[in-house]
Amino acid sequence: MPYKPSSLWRSLRAYQIYGANTNVGKTIMSTILTKAFKRKFPSQNVWYLKPVSTGPLDEADDRHIARFSPDTKTKCLFQFDEPVSPHIAARSSKPLSDTEAQDKVLAHLTACAESGAGTVLVETAGGVHSPTPSGSSQADLYRPLRLPICLVADHHLGGISASISAFESLHIRGYDLDTVLQFEDGKYQNHTYLQEFFERKGISSLSLPPPPPRGQTEEEDQEMMSEYYEKMSNLDKVEEVITTLAEQHAQRIENLEGMSTRADSKIWYPFTQHREVSPQNIMTIDSASGDFFQTYNPASKDGTLVPTFDGSASWWTQGLGHGNPELSLAAAYAAGRYGHVMFAGTIHEPALQLAESLLHHLNNPRLSKVFYSDNGSTGMEVAVKMALTASFERYKWDVPKEEIGIIGLKGSYHGDTIGAMDASEPSVYNERVHWYKGRGHWFDFPQVKMVKGKWIVEPPKGMESEFGDVTEFASLAEIFDINARLGSSAGRKYSKHIEEILDRLINKEGKIFGALVMEPVILGAGGMLFADPLFQHLLTSVIRTSRLFPSRAHTSATTWTGLPVIHDEVFTGLYRLGTFTPSTLLQSQPDISVHAKLLTGGLVPLCCTVASKSIFDAFLGNEKRDALLHGHSYTAHPVGCHVAGKSIAKLVEIEKEGIWDSAKEDWKSGSRLASVSDQAVQAWSVWSRGFVKKISYSREVESVIALGSVLAIKLQDENSGYSSTAATGLQKKLLGGSDDFKIHVRVLGNVLYMMASQTSRSETLRSIEKSLLEALC
Amino acid sequence: MPYKPSSLWRSLRAYQIYGANTNVGKTIMSTILTKAFKRKFPSQNVWYLKPVSTGPLDEADDRHIARFSPDTKTKCLFQFDEPVSPHIAARSSKPLSDTEAQDKVLAHLTACAESGAGTVLVETAGGVHSPTPSGSSQADLYRPLRLPICLVADHHLGGISASISAFESLHIRGYDLDTVLQFEDGKYQNHTYLQEFFERKGISSLSLPPPPPRGQTEEEDQEMMSEYYEKMSNLDKVEEVITTLAEQHAQRIENLEGMSTRADSKIWYPFTQHREVSPQNIMTIDSASGDFFQTYNPASKDGTLVPTFDGSASWWTQGLGHGNPELSLAAAYAAGRYGHVMFAGTIHEPALQLAESLLHHLNNPRLSKVFYSDNGSTGMEVAVKMALTASFERYKWDVPKEEIGIIGLKGSYHGDTIGAMDASEPSVYNERVHWYKGRGHWFDFPQVKMVKGKWIVEPPKGMESEFGDVTEFASLAEIFDINARLGSSAGRKYSKHIEEILDRLINKEGKIFGALVMEPVILGAGGMLFADPLFQHLLTSVIRTSRLFPSRAHTSATTWTGLPVIHDEVFTGLYRLGTFTPSTLLQSQPDISVHAKLLTGGLVPLCCTVASKSIFDAFLGNEKRDALLHGHSYTAHPVGCHVAGKSIAKLVEIEKEGIWDSAKEDWKSGSRLASVSDQAVQAWSVWSRGFVKKISYSREVESVIALGSVLAIKLQDENSGYSSTAATGLQKKLLGGSDDFKIHVRVLGNVLYMMASQTSRSETLRSIEKSLLEALC
Repeated sequence: MPYKPSSLWRSLRAYQIYGANTNVGKTIMSTILTKAFKRKFPSQNVWYLKPVSTGPLDEADDRHIARFSPDTKTKCLFQFDEPVSPHIAARSSKPLSDTEAQDKVLAHLTACAESGAGTVLVETAGGVHSPTPSGSSQADLYRPLRLPICLVADHHLGGISASISAFESLHIRGYDLDTVLQFEDGKYQNHTYLQEFFERKGISSLSLPPPPPRGQTEEEDQEMMSEYYEKMSNLDKVEEVITTLAEQHAQRIENLEGMSTRADSKIWYPFTQHREVSPQNIMTIDSASGDFFQTYNPASKDGTLVPTFDGSASWWTQGLGHGNPELSLAAAYAAGRYGHVMFAGTIHEPALQLAESLLHHLNNPRLSKVFYSDNGSTGMEVAVKMALTASFERYKWDVPKEEIGIIGLKGSYHGDTIGAMDASEPSVYNERVHWYKGRGHWFDFPQVKMVKGKWIVEPPKGMESEFGDVTEFASLAEIFDINARLGSSAGRKYSKHIEEILDRLINKEGKIFGALVMEPVILGAGGMLFADPLFQHLLTSVIRTSRLFPSRAHTSATTWTGLPVIHDEVFTGLYRLGTFTPSTLLQSQPDISVHAKLLTGGLVPLCCTVASKSIFDAFLGNEKRDALLHGHSYTAHPVGCHVAGKSIAKLVEIEKEGIWDSAKEDWKSGSRLASVSDQAVQAWSVWSRGFVKKISYSREVESVIALGSVLAIKLQDENSGYSSTAATGLQKKLLGGSDDFKIHVRVLGNVLYMMASQTSRSETLRSIEKSLLEALC
Repeated sequence: MPYKPSSLWRSLRAYQIYGANTNVGKTIMSTILTKAFKRKFPSQNVWYLKPVSTGPLDEADDRHIARFSPDTKTKCLFQFDEPVSPHIAARSSKPLSDTEAQDKVLAHLTACAESGAGTVLVETAGGVHSPTPSGSSQADLYRPLRLPICLVADHHLGGISASISAFESLHIRGYDLDTVLQFEDGKYQNHTYLQEFFERKGISSLSLPPPPPRGQTEEEDQEMMSEYYEKMSNLDKVEEVITTLAEQHAQRIENLEGMSTRADSKIWYPFTQHREVSPQNIMTIDSASGDFFQTYNPASKDGTLVPTFDGSASWWTQGLGHGNPELSLAAAYAAGRYGHVMFAGTIHEPALQLAESLLHHLNNPRLSKVFYSDNGSTGMEVAVKMALTASFERYKWDVPKEEIGIIGLKGSYHGDTIGAMDASEPSVYNERVHWYKGRGHWFDFPQVKMVKGKWIVEPPKGMESEFGDVTEFASLAEIFDINARLGSSAGRKYSKHIEEILDRLINKEGKIFGALVMEPVILGAGGMLFADPLFQHLLTSVIRTSRLFPSRAHTSATTWTGLPVIHDEVFTGLYRLGTFTPSTLLQSQPDISVHAKLLTGGLVPLCCTVASKSIFDAFLGNEKRDALLHGHSYTAHPVGCHVAGKSIAKLVEIEKEGIWDSAKEDWKSGSRLASVSDQAVQAWSVWSRGFVKKISYSREVESVIALGSVLAIKLQDENSGYSSTAATGLQKKLLGGSDDFKIHVRVLGNVLYMMASQTSRSETLRSIEKSLLEALC
């Protein structure tokens, strides 16, 4: 299965039995529970599943259950004889992958659910982090199922600590504990302490007398145990726990059922026309792992949750998978070490390390200072403030300061705060916003797309004379071969056009500009517009060298000239397009760049605006008022900085480890290498080249683009743009689900895009490609 | 000691020995380490400290060390005879508080440090979470010391899980592990697995053969152990670990020493004139706990860290203390369960629960919808967009949409994005910002302050005819007795003045206003200006009822009239001023309120803009463009929402538990109750009434205010305002330190303010009051 499975059924109560340690009585507690469930619900089934068992077969836990709780249907999926940890026991057998284990467990649970109402207990091996046969932690292995947990606490000396730590390890993985089970011990009294501890967290617990000591003979032993089990499973307090567990199951489903109605009444959604919102079209997300949401599925008779591919990478933020335990730990570490500490005139390790790491990997000699804020929009406001002040300090224009504009591209989007909006041209996003005022000029630009199997660069409609005719390229690589294309006829046309427009605006119309602001390579919210990289490259170089901007004398090669160049890399940065920074693809380096979204691996908001020294110096002065008087309370919050530091390290490691090599190879094989110069930066995608080509032939498709983890399909539609509804049909089809899972995507007018994580599994992507081909061709 | 102590010395290497479980060999490993340290540094001291020991004296761990590592100076602070968990063992003795235990440990470590170079090992009891004598977890008890950790892993069956969970429990509390120590076990091979596990996390580990089995006689036993210890402490790999530990100690200090220089080179600070920044005035924060930063102290010869009170509550965000383990766990849970999941048309539990909880506790019948964004500034932009569209939809003014302004108060501050800035009048914050344009009218207003022991309401300079003369009040309570004051001469003057100004602006000058925007009660960044609540109350009621705004017909009592009223409660909300919402203090309810800062208990950025249905309805339409087209990638990120949900619950619980009752009593006793009506809301502060009065008499002080956890002292100064430097002298004095700790505060011009947490300890606050009195009087 390419996806992480669902595991919630109306008819089937499924619990996972975890132990705070090995030898704490998981199987004994399970036996008691199975008997008590049978007693409580005599007409229903009770199942017991031991996915992985080690040790002699006749001592196996499932046999114990079968003996003492004969009405229970027991099963063990993987049995190893050696009484050691599964990762050692499994060495002599054929390798058992985590996915295989997950699949088998899910298959068994599904079979249980299909055979009628009941309860199933899934008993783990050893403690919470005991290794699986593959060597991973079982707490991680079973996490995608996220079954509610019955934790068997440790009643031995030291067991308080073991039990609390076990709880914490489960909790930070997003598991919910339904109950804690423990044996009483008069001397250590762990159960008293732990009962109070868990009560404070709202978790009930059940304390039972320990089983009798071993008898003289096996017969006596069995008799005593039978008696013990009879007595325990009949206790009122055991029945209470069973009732509570059953209620929690029912409540969980009831809660999922009611959430969209409550949300409809209380939540004001971003970017949403609420007239079209009703409880029926709000998607309830129970949890998420890897690339998948677990969503509530009202259509289902029984399986209440359904895996749904997060096809917008949760608004382009996801890179390392949902519920990534390394990122949870990183967040918690920084929260534990600092909480938040104020960041004016102070320094802490996560902020310093992130700044250094970002500057290092951006590898842009212009950049030397990192300014923190909270999201792409605030980070862009900071960038614009930086650039405008820097150019004003140099040019000292004698005009009201609100009249200085920026140069950008049509279809740009930089965020929703007023300053960020003002950097975009008038559009549907801002037309009803009272304080919005577009400040600048936005260029038309030629676009890259694949049409009917061919990569082309297409001029804006009716502007062939300025940009040249549609040009066909043998490969994407050729398009990114900037140096080779500089001297081309297109290159010359682009430069001339840019010069002419600027000359008109500045010299004829008296406009004043203080910055160039661009989303490098792909303009996201504007509709996934893939700009010809040569045009963006030349826009920067013309502005940097044009006589229109008389800034010549500069102190070093990293001083800005012409105008400060801002790259809004919020969407396109940090491997989203396959390279650490899209500036590499453009072969052009900004004076200011802005980074967010993937920065924190998709966990919490954070933004870095990175600037050159010559920008920074413009704010040095004798007075406080000369400084950049901008800041947010949580500026450089340690949680975000530390998670970001870890995310960047992980992304860089993924590239170094060659995880993307086969995808790179796939795209390389499509290049006529002879025609691409050595300096060309490789363009590649996690979406397969063959698929992209194939889908471009669909008659419903106007064009396709793919780069890095981005895929965007422009559908044939007469009313293009943000108000178009052409893509919503396809969107609905995908959400309807394939054999394997649903696919949740966002559309931008007649463009349907799909965004994978940087860690999406190849099988998942191939499965999605198949769904798309089926839906379209 | 009122503070959480420091614990890093140049001359003294201090390590804490934690065990992954009880009975894993902590003392044996400690013995080996002490011997090896002595061997490596023969001229230096080696100490061994067992803070809490249970069990027979002759089996005590410190005796074991003394016997087998005779060069080690051993010490046990609290010895209990019963071999059970300390919380049980301590029951028969007099109670031992965590603070007392912390103090004694620190005192011992300090004594060690003072007696020369060396190494000290502090061995814990049982596992990481084993209870302390008071019943808390020792991982929490020792956290303020944050000694680097040597974790003794568990080599028994199940020990892999125990060791990893123990690591996670320490890690999420912000501890750093220096090394992992473990015994080899041929069968279970935990050491092999764990060595790899920790290596991947960059943590070294040392595996040693287990000690010999017990001998026949005690003598034989001792001989065998002696031999074992000799052998172990001479191993090359043990020496390597000693070298590594010593290096890590040196590196930690070196790193702290260098951080401010690196920061100076790479960081662009918020609100900072960098000309005044040098490595010498950047404060390096190692970590934080409770109300204290642990900051690097370059002035110190030996004690490298110093506790520094976080006197700005880290830009007004802190309420539940730094490094709060409950909040870390909450953050990690949500990260583990979801990561982030996109929030357009979806719902997840943390976002839903937070929305419901906030609406419930705000207890304002007008409010019914929650819109999420990332910080106060973005939340205020959203609020303004909401209000302007709502009033435009009703009044349909025929003017360019950027000409609609807001009504506010002079000295307001709402954030640093352009839209939030535009809602504030021109000031030093925005005068050099190119796209800033103040849009509206800002009223002068009378202020509340204590001057020479008296609470007064003071009119703006030269405006006595509009606002009345300075009025003296017997207590703060009387000032907040809004209903009683409505009919007062001041009340009548305020209303008349407001009407007259509005009439002039609207009817004479043709201005158009779309919203009233206020920080209720105290205007923060503008200089901690305490507005007369009666004035703010009347501003709202005049606008809601004035004939200037011809909106009469309204469908319900919760429909806005006149203009939508926005309360910017980012700073003043969530108990900062002593009540859940400051609207309670004003006895006036907004149509839109904005909440951030304390919202997440001071961990990560998050903001809620809460609005009424009549605001929400203005965005319903047939087209997407009619909607509020605003959103951020991390809108309603589960980590923030879940932490916020927990924080709010905790704050409400604190109030219910009566933690603030004695402070409330202190302030009540100052009210002439007879003169205050029953409906008056109680005004109180964590700062003591006596102290506030006393300091108001200082000749350096012009006036004082105190409310909730806020204290602000306005100093005598001719150049008042943001550019004033009067308070910086006092600021430096406080940072210089008292006997107990340094105090880090922020100043706003000639105002020095101090902000406690909602959980600050009384002793800490009294100590700060003492420092302030000493510095000022």
